[in-house]
Amino acid sequence: MKLWQKDKAALAAVEKFTVGNDREMDAYLAPFDVLGSLAHITMLQSIGLLEAAELDILKKELRNIYSEIAAGDFVLEEGVEDIHSQVELLLTRRLGEVGKKIHSGRSRNDQVLVDVKLFLRHELQTLVTEVKALFDLLQQKSEEYKQHLLPGYTHLQIAMPSSFGLWFGAYAESLVDDLTVLQSAYKVVNKNPLGSAAGYGSSFPLNRKMTTALLGFEDLNYNVVYAQMGRGKTEKIVSFALAGIAGTLAKMAMDACLFMNQNFGFISFPDELTTGSSIMPHKKNPDVWELIRSHGNKLQALPNEITMMITNLPSGYHRDLQLLKENLFPAFDTLKDCLRMSRLMLEHVKVREGILDDSKYQYLFSVEVVNKLVLEGMPFREAYKKVGMDIEKGEFAPGTAISHTHEGSIGNLCTTQIAQMMDEVLKGFSFEKVDKAVEELLK
Amino acid sequence: MKLWQKDKAALAAVEKFTVGNDREMDAYLAPFDVLGSLAHITMLQSIGLLEAAELDILKKELRNIYSEIAAGDFVLEEGVEDIHSQVELLLTRRLGEVGKKIHSGRSRNDQVLVDVKLFLRHELQTLVTEVKALFDLLQQKSEEYKQHLLPGYTHLQIAMPSSFGLWFGAYAESLVDDLTVLQSAYKVVNKNPLGSAAGYGSSFPLNRKMTTALLGFEDLNYNVVYAQMGRGKTEKIVSFALAGIAGTLAKMAMDACLFMNQNFGFISFPDELTTGSSIMPHKKNPDVWELIRSHGNKLQALPNEITMMITNLPSGYHRDLQLLKENLFPAFDTLKDCLRMSRLMLEHVKVREGILDDSKYQYLFSVEVVNKLVLEGMPFREAYKKVGMDIEKGEFAPGTAISHTHEGSIGNLCTTQIAQMMDEVLKGFSFEKVDKAVEELLK
Amino acid sequence: MKLWQKDKAALAAVEKFTVGNDREMDAYLAPFDVLGSLAHITMLQSIGLLEAAELDILKKELRNIYSEIAAGDFVLEEGVEDIHSQVELLLTRRLGEVGKKIHSGRSRNDQVLVDVKLFLRHELQTLVTEVKALFDLLQQKSEEYKQHLLPGYTHLQIAMPSSFGLWFGAYAESLVDDLTVLQSAYKVVNKNPLGSAAGYGSSFPLNRKMTTALLGFEDLNYNVVYAQMGRGKTEKIVSFALAGIAGTLAKMAMDACLFMNQNFGFISFPDELTTGSSIMPHKKNPDVWELIRSHGNKLQALPNEITMMITNLPSGYHRDLQLLKENLFPAFDTLKDCLRMSRLMLEHVKVREGILDDSKYQYLFSVEVVNKLVLEGMPFREAYKKVGMDIEKGEFAPGTAISHTHEGSIGNLCTTQIAQMMDEVLKGFSFEKVDKAVEELLK
Amino acid sequence: MKLWQKDKAALAAVEKFTVGNDREMDAYLAPFDVLGSLAHITMLQSIGLLEAAELDILKKELRNIYSEIAAGDFVLEEGVEDIHSQVELLLTRRLGEVGKKIHSGRSRNDQVLVDVKLFLRHELQTLVTEVKALFDLLQQKSEEYKQHLLPGYTHLQIAMPSSFGLWFGAYAESLVDDLTVLQSAYKVVNKNPLGSAAGYGSSFPLNRKMTTALLGFEDLNYNVVYAQMGRGKTEKIVSFALAGIAGTLAKMAMDACLFMNQNFGFISFPDELTTGSSIMPHKKNPDVWELIRSHGNKLQALPNEITMMITNLPSGYHRDLQLLKENLFPAFDTLKDCLRMSRLMLEHVKVREGILDDSKYQYLFSVEVVNKLVLEGMPFREAYKKVGMDIEKGEFAPGTAISHTHEGSIGNLCTTQIAQMMDEVLKGFSFEKVDKAVEELLK
Repeated sequence: MKLWQKDKAALAAVEKFTVGNDREMDAYLAPFDVLGSLAHITMLQSIGLLEAAELDILKKELRNIYSEIAAGDFVLEEGVEDIHSQVELLLTRRLGEVGKKIHSGRSRNDQVLVDVKLFLRHELQTLVTEVKALFDLLQQKSEEYKQHLLPGYTHLQIAMPSSFGLWFGAYAESLVDDLTVLQSAYKVVNKNPLGSAAGYGSSFPLNRKMTTALLGFEDLNYNVVYAQMGRGKTEKIVSFALAGIAGTLAKMAMDACLFMNQNFGFISFPDELTTGSSIMPHKKNPDVWELIRSHGNKLQALPNEITMMITNLPSGYHRDLQLLKENLFPAFDTLKDCLRMSRLMLEHVKVREGILDDSKYQYLFSVEVVNKLVLEGMPFREAYKKVGMDIEKGEFAPGTAISHTHEGSIGNLCTTQIAQMMDEVLKGFSFEKVDKAVEELLK
Repeated sequence: MKLWQKDKAALAAVEKFTVGNDREMDAYLAPFDVLGSLAHITMLQSIGLLEAAELDILKKELRNIYSEIAAGDFVLEEGVEDIHSQVELLLTRRLGEVGKKIHSGRSRNDQVLVDVKLFLRHELQTLVTEVKALFDLLQQKSEEYKQHLLPGYTHLQIAMPSSFGLWFGAYAESLVDDLTVLQSAYKVVNKNPLGSAAGYGSSFPLNRKMTTALLGFEDLNYNVVYAQMGRGKTEKIVSFALAGIAGTLAKMAMDACLFMNQNFGFISFPDELTTGSSIMPHKKNPDVWELIRSHGNKLQALPNEITMMITNLPSGYHRDLQLLKENLFPAFDTLKDCLRMSRLMLEHVKVREGILDDSKYQYLFSVEVVNKLVLEGMPFREAYKKVGMDIEKGEFAPGTAISHTHEGSIGNLCTTQIAQMMDEVLKGFSFEKVDKAVEELLK
Repeated sequence: MKLWQKDKAALAAVEKFTVGNDREMDAYLAPFDVLGSLAHITMLQSIGLLEAAELDILKKELRNIYSEIAAGDFVLEEGVEDIHSQVELLLTRRLGEVGKKIHSGRSRNDQVLVDVKLFLRHELQTLVTEVKALFDLLQQKSEEYKQHLLPGYTHLQIAMPSSFGLWFGAYAESLVDDLTVLQSAYKVVNKNPLGSAAGYGSSFPLNRKMTTALLGFEDLNYNVVYAQMGRGKTEKIVSFALAGIAGTLAKMAMDACLFMNQNFGFISFPDELTTGSSIMPHKKNPDVWELIRSHGNKLQALPNEITMMITNLPSGYHRDLQLLKENLFPAFDTLKDCLRMSRLMLEHVKVREGILDDSKYQYLFSVEVVNKLVLEGMPFREAYKKVGMDIEKGEFAPGTAISHTHEGSIGNLCTTQIAQMMDEVLKGFSFEKVDKAVEELLK
Repeated sequence: MKLWQKDKAALAAVEKFTVGNDREMDAYLAPFDVLGSLAHITMLQSIGLLEAAELDILKKELRNIYSEIAAGDFVLEEGVEDIHSQVELLLTRRLGEVGKKIHSGRSRNDQVLVDVKLFLRHELQTLVTEVKALFDLLQQKSEEYKQHLLPGYTHLQIAMPSSFGLWFGAYAESLVDDLTVLQSAYKVVNKNPLGSAAGYGSSFPLNRKMTTALLGFEDLNYNVVYAQMGRGKTEKIVSFALAGIAGTLAKMAMDACLFMNQNFGFISFPDELTTGSSIMPHKKNPDVWELIRSHGNKLQALPNEITMMITNLPSGYHRDLQLLKENLFPAFDTLKDCLRMSRLMLEHVKVREGILDDSKYQYLFSVEVVNKLVLEGMPFREAYKKVGMDIEKGEFAPGTAISHTHEGSIGNLCTTQIAQMMDEVLKGFSFEKVDKAVEELLK
């Protein structure tokens, strides 16, 4: 029986259309719904809306349900509208009427809001772990290959000497900025909307500070209208964070595909990590990188998709918001897959030796020669002109020694400083506090 | 004469096409180009690539140019390719050959990079000021109208009592989260790319930490390949911040248009702030809000536009990036205009009294009645059923007293706590340090 | 066993990542893969690459498989890479070695290309049928309610008299233009890519005109490089068509939500088609319309998502393209659901009588009065001024008779002409030719 | 004096904000506004709202104004709100009170609608001309270089032999499909909205069929609510057409940049069409192609930008629509520039001879060898295995003769058939009818 049914049967088509994939999406929220209820009933008891004894048995059973969810033993039963109803149903079935009390002082709307926030907070945390692992690997590869030179391109034209140290290291440092963006999303997420009811608050004397503390939130979404307005907006901000990381991976994948191309031939991978062709026996295709790139670009379209779906909606809840789950929830798994596959590939990357020995790269060193003349006293414009003329006349014959010493250059990668920058960002998260609060709720 | 001309004339069409609007865009960068050069030459002297006397006269003249720019006396002359060439030209014209030395150890690429970063940093700072002013006004209006009730809608259906205190306050709190996102963009921006040359570093013994300190940057973009990779990526991250604020304004504008509609009739504005119609004498059109909404939505499309233009470009500079200036640079002025117009409108908003006296809003109070029954001991589902039946039978006659007391509700807006949250965010910027560094460079 | 395996086991993770949801997506293509093979082998026999007897048994078995697919008895078996392999496997299992011959002269790439084209062509055809059904209903409602007046808004301000005849009719006419856009997508789709092999053609003496005729295509994608380049591009163009229809539905849904809002109160729906609220017993929520709007807006983001995923890919196949299936294939079902739900709702719409009797709408008639004065000889500007002053002085008292007679106005809806315009568009499709060709292949 | 001013001064800030860049945008519309007025007044006279003598002098003066616009002698004067007011002002200044009569029976809204439609129709026509010119050049180059082989890539891996004949020809054929999409936009544009007034029609006995014929429109936007709803929607559909062409150019530009890269080295251009580097004397940068790509990608983001700005606006005019001019109007010039620059580049392209002589391309021929074995009777899978093993053992030594004969392959480009396909599309436009109608109005 659905709550809004009121003695009238909704047409099956309406039901099917309005439910859509929402039941599948609710599965993502199950454990977080239990956490939200645990905090809520603890607060209800503190303001006299629940007996201490009732609180005890409800908490015990909610923790059982949490364990069942963790063990994969939880299902949304046929005919049950959503995760919140399922949890309430289980409680009522097992404990009787008291089970219904977990809904007191709450609306479906703020229950979803808090579930989504807790889910997103959790996903962002695990995402940080995956990003950090890739960061570490990139830094390690950067150090490992710091002597391996590579042509650097501008305008896709051979330009100046670069190195694999720089190339791997660049993507490591890129992830630092990506986590800076992600952290802002985390901060927006990590505020408590619970108690906003249908988006206009309620006449119950709720203690929202208490649920904030119990759930490990950093602060409240105070204004109840804003708490509701955060739906959609929060998803959008989180999607910015995902799009940032996805953009970094997609760009690295584009580089990798180019570097694997036989005209470049800079890197290769074991056969197990490439694929062949049904009609071309010699191919070693970079399918993994291509799919990382494609997923990455799809994820980069996500902020726009979310924005399109919420734009020009007046304030207050709209059912439109339901579909945002389908955009955003599976995106986390996709992005984490891409991060893991990037690591798998990079762990096995083979870098070609002696790339710059090829004569087509000799002009790479022209700037080195210009600079050397400048350091010896020739004005830049003159030195530039001389080298340009030598090249035109075919008289350009540079040495290939590279001596770049400044911060962040081939000879001075600043790997440690970049790691420190990453550590600084990581300190800005409050994972321990959150973990502790959740643990407390469940014990 | 253009630097890359090498005795050959580019066809005029190519010139026109490749320059495009870039000269107009360069005007945004002029003062920041001078700042970058001041820091660069100070460093050059410290590593022996410039005489102390040369440094002195160059600094003096660069400061003159800075003043000319500030006074509006600076023009990009016909035939001069870009802002960097124009500054160098002025120096050479006034000081002779030494003027050319400001380019030593730099590439056009890292000169643009640092100019763009300094420009964006400055714009973000002024944007914060404008956002804060609107935030303050919204908080003030929220307090001023906290007694004025308003119907709250869900699904655009009359739902529960709300208030103008909540409505104004919600948008204030929304801006706090928007500035949290903006701050992450600020942090990404506030790192020094100078010294990355064409994106692969150089053989000059540059002291990049020194220019970092001189320009007031918080840290370096260490890896030179990443410094270049930041182009496009930085613009995208900044556009997330702009899109966030723009989204808040657009939503508020949508609400305002609806509330001004005669079927709602909740707010109005003086005639001077509305427009009439060429054929309908009675109209008071909300053109300002409509244009805020339209600009806001256009700005919300900006992250996607930038992403589309940089996606799948391999690492290294591409000329494609030039066009990002046209997307992003004017967007700051547009957004600041929208913030100021929002303030102008809200300063003059007239809120209608006694909105809820209209009988169509009586059902607003149904939840109040349900909750009251619950607080008196009736189980929620029963209370809900009873009220539902009263409504169906036409026997529902609620009182209209509202007593919402929890955090963030009608009776307890938490204006102070939200202001504190805003202050916390503001503390995370380093405006003073930046202002001081810039002042130091110019004195 | 996968074709590209060549004695080396791909890591399971790579397999899982690269396959992704592609097997589910391939289910959409199954019947079309069989059609493509039927045409291909008929052609193979005609150029001597297959015996007549072989052709006969292959055709017979392929038709069996087609029936199995239609009956829902076809599954992609565990470990079989894709739909093409599954079909080949079944043939080989049932017919022996000859089964493998269906792949001669083809590449996986052009097999996918032709499957996708046939699938899209089919989906576009069924989409046209659904759009036409909604069009007919809208026209019927337009005639049914042509006497029912409605306020017309500009700037969301009460402006001029409108009617439900106009309102329903506007959305009908909108669908005509949407089908015009869809038709261009149909034309792009309805060209044969088969024979392009991996995108560079082959040394087999294929007769591509023959497969074109057999499959009912209007023409060929001649150039084989272009045939391959059409992947992604075709999906994008089809997504334009979907986005067009989706935009029309989303706008209608927005209107419907507004008109159902109690402040407007223009239309309503039976309880079975609306939903209630868990805490507000009086609500009749327009969830169906909200979800049509939300799906519609998500579909409107689809062209951008597809573009983002293909932009800046050089010519030639890339694995990135695989993921486009996941964007586009389910979108057809979603859009058709939305079309059907729109019809369900509109069939039951209740239009309120006497809307304009409310005094707040009297100014609607101001333009009428102005125009009447003009028709009586007063210059427009003077008439406008007079009415404006009457309104300001509170002396405006219009009659409410409406006499609009020109084409497309309240009194002259031109329903027939719009239906003719729709018929003209429908004539531009070649559904009969296509149906006949498919029937021929299967008999 | 502005029409809606009604004795009250709008604040200057409001004026500046609401006008924005709209005056610049109106310059695009000037000639079309005159055309619209010519048709309108001719119709007004036919229904008795204008004397024949009045019509004569108004027509004469409007044609004068049209000539002034064509000669560049027309300015939007300071303080005049828009193009419509400026035209009316000139008429009144020159002819007295009769000048005001051109506005009778029209609203600003339908005046803008018809101007925009006429402008878009004109721009689409000139765009077709530019696309056709590029198409012809691509076909010519395709024939010129049909003997020049090129490696074909899949997954960016060397795959199969291709040719410049195929490469140029593919982009030619791509433009055929792009014009198919453009044609649907043209058909949507080429319907007459004039007479819809403010979007709800009027009580004047307008003859909309007559203005339709006079302006050369194919048909009417009948329903007046739909005529207004077409604003935004039309722009979106036109942007699909622009995005299509832009996508083709951007992809070609990406290929060109890659082919110019020294690792590929397939094509080059005269120095005048490339640019050098300020610090790397040997560079020949493909700036023109990079900017075509960047503009192309920006244009591909345009449909999304427009959609974002109109989504979820209820029916009826909103001021939001004004800003669409800024997105779309300059886009035509940009796209035409890109088309012309593409032609300039391609006219001068130098194709390298003997590309496939490089040993790294020998595996290109593996499929040829497999196919040859198959044609000689070996089953495909066996032939494939044999060649694969030969390659692994280093015993693969193919000949390099290519014999591809089927439609659209290296040896059979079908240039004529593709040209016919283009001609078919071009026949679907009604340029002559339109040109004649416009000529008639002006003579």
